[in-house]
Amino acid sequence: MGAEIFSVGTELLLGQIVDTNAVFLAQQLSNLGVDCFHKTTVGDNQGRLVAALRTALVRADIIISTGGLGPTEDDLTAAGVAEALGVELYLDEPAAEAIRQLIAKRGYPFLPSHLKQAQIPVGSIVLPNPVGTAPGFWIEKDGKTIISMPGPPHEMRAMFTESVAPRLQQRAGGVVIVSRVLHFMGIGESMLEERLKDLIEAQTNPTIAPLAGMGEVRLRITAKILGREAAQALIAPVEAEIRQRVGDYIVSTDNEPLEVSVDRLLKARGLTLAVAESCTGGLIANKLTNIPGASEYFMAGLVTYSNEAKIKLLGVQEATLAQYGAVSAQTATEMARGARNAGAAQIGVSTTGIAGPTGATAEKPVGLVYIAVSSDQQEVCEEFRFRGDREMIKNQAANAALNLLRKTIEQAS
Amino acid sequence: MGAEIFSVGTELLLGQIVDTNAVFLAQQLSNLGVDCFHKTTVGDNQGRLVAALRTALVRADIIISTGGLGPTEDDLTAAGVAEALGVELYLDEPAAEAIRQLIAKRGYPFLPSHLKQAQIPVGSIVLPNPVGTAPGFWIEKDGKTIISMPGPPHEMRAMFTESVAPRLQQRAGGVVIVSRVLHFMGIGESMLEERLKDLIEAQTNPTIAPLAGMGEVRLRITAKILGREAAQALIAPVEAEIRQRVGDYIVSTDNEPLEVSVDRLLKARGLTLAVAESCTGGLIANKLTNIPGASEYFMAGLVTYSNEAKIKLLGVQEATLAQYGAVSAQTATEMARGARNAGAAQIGVSTTGIAGPTGATAEKPVGLVYIAVSSDQQEVCEEFRFRGDREMIKNQAANAALNLLRKTIEQAS
Repeated sequence: MGAEIFSVGTELLLGQIVDTNAVFLAQQLSNLGVDCFHKTTVGDNQGRLVAALRTALVRADIIISTGGLGPTEDDLTAAGVAEALGVELYLDEPAAEAIRQLIAKRGYPFLPSHLKQAQIPVGSIVLPNPVGTAPGFWIEKDGKTIISMPGPPHEMRAMFTESVAPRLQQRAGGVVIVSRVLHFMGIGESMLEERLKDLIEAQTNPTIAPLAGMGEVRLRITAKILGREAAQALIAPVEAEIRQRVGDYIVSTDNEPLEVSVDRLLKARGLTLAVAESCTGGLIANKLTNIPGASEYFMAGLVTYSNEAKIKLLGVQEATLAQYGAVSAQTATEMARGARNAGAAQIGVSTTGIAGPTGATAEKPVGLVYIAVSSDQQEVCEEFRFRGDREMIKNQAANAALNLLRKTIEQAS
Repeated sequence: MGAEIFSVGTELLLGQIVDTNAVFLAQQLSNLGVDCFHKTTVGDNQGRLVAALRTALVRADIIISTGGLGPTEDDLTAAGVAEALGVELYLDEPAAEAIRQLIAKRGYPFLPSHLKQAQIPVGSIVLPNPVGTAPGFWIEKDGKTIISMPGPPHEMRAMFTESVAPRLQQRAGGVVIVSRVLHFMGIGESMLEERLKDLIEAQTNPTIAPLAGMGEVRLRITAKILGREAAQALIAPVEAEIRQRVGDYIVSTDNEPLEVSVDRLLKARGLTLAVAESCTGGLIANKLTNIPGASEYFMAGLVTYSNEAKIKLLGVQEATLAQYGAVSAQTATEMARGARNAGAAQIGVSTTGIAGPTGATAEKPVGLVYIAVSSDQQEVCEEFRFRGDREMIKNQAANAALNLLRKTIEQAS
């Protein structure tokens, strides 16, 4: 048995908002060592709310709900929890007073509906709302716990951090779940699993699980044990074994975007960069300049789709384009060199390829991309064949370029 | 009774990925007129998966699952559905053959585990995967329908659009929910609601609802009626009335990104474009080059963070930078002109501003952005003050630049 995350709100069922609360709570529960086995979403309908709560009470020990605690007719969570547990609602006078004071402080007119938020199931601990009017509550009955918090994310997060997390921590007795995520490039999911099959099957703590997604292969190592350090000690040897077998394909850890490690490397070594992009169309520049302080090293980005722009802005030779074509290792290398010159940078990186859906030929299919890095010490160029739609190919090419950049800088050390 | 969205994957319960599939499906079901009353998430555990499916079978007519159809041991959805419905799995030979062919085409080694994806519950319609290996399936039993699709979002979306939506539409018997979303810039949500208050209150079919979110103001007009044409006939006069009142602030419709309308305009008029970006750091180029065929008009993009790059690559005058600074209308205008020259394009657009979190001064705060458009007929420059973090400011600045571009081209007609 474990916890169930329980989101209330019709707007969630219509896809009008993304349930960031559920993501936050899932991460927090995981960090606190509380197993979460289900997430449920229901709309603003008391019958379905009560039925779904009863289902959750059967399969979970702890139900953590968000939403439906506001002042409107649509806000049904307190009443639903009371009905599901067979208790009454009462007006909590300290909570009512806190609401009155906050409304007065904000200078809003006080409406009777505001007091609806102080209607709490009998037997609850009231959880103060540090940043809004609706309090939450924590109620235990027949060995089950229901924790209800308001839906606005900043209110929920403040309440969780201040009142809920400490109580859950106490309850878990120090057991934590710690995960390490390894990101791979250049190896498929099946092949990765094949290479690690014995490890994956033998391991129970930590567990090893492959994660699929968006042209990316990841592996999660998860330990559950008393104390964060003990968890890390369980993970370390397993990670070391994985790195020994397939470390060449690992490009980052714990969901860190590749541009963050490139940014860190460039800043640490005081290197400057210029980027020449054909098929990635500005995506590499955009990723790097999303990071504060990129102006320290980012000298120039040049998006050169046409042959004319490659010649004029990057100094690519007409003869190179005529002989090898725009999508070639030769052009990629001249582009990287040209970016370095145009931006007066120490390192240049370039991409040229066919993002599709048009532009392919028999010899040069959609997804063929050449990526080059140029510095005064070396020039490297690699050929890639990516799959997917235009945006996926752009994204994979940008990541491959960042990875080649990372490897080149690291090897130059 | 209605539909239940059913997501499978331990990574969702750990908060490691956001369930964008559930949001997409919620929106699609709403558009198709299918009521969705529950969303459930379970991990990669067969016992809990089967139990949760049985719960869903009691309260929903249609269960739409995503995830858990891959080749690994963790992928349990097909087996779970078979168990919940009391049917066997069989190896679907056409599906197996499609997998073999795709693997061969991609040049990967074929592994026995790949065929696991062709294990389908008996009695299913197999749903082809247009962009990946794992097929989906649609199975009906005892008046209930389970639709299972793979988890990778691009595969799920392609399969839903191609195979699932048409079947659901047929089933809905012709009643549709049709929405029209209008996107506004330059007017706040409260002001917009004020200008349309009487309309919003009077309308019941279609309804008019403001949608909040991420520094953007949108309005949704929703009609529910038999037949798409009838729905559109309900919406049209309401949209016309809104356009008459606040049409000046409408920048796009139906979630169409601004770059799509700019792309269409440039292509229709045979105009060419060059982009000079300082604070947007390549984002405008990236947005435009996400659209197939952008190479028709996209001559060059120049990401010039430093003064040196602005001078060398765009021909901005040193005196302009010295007198007015890099973040000024004068510099923006010279950048747009310089982009046009560098890219030999008919139109140039530029951005220069302070994306933050650093770089602000007393007179030039974070969020101050100048945007200019230059053609041989005119030059315009506008000043903006955006709020939010670095990525939000970049995004708002890129959208404002695309909007200024759109307006300038339209007015030149």
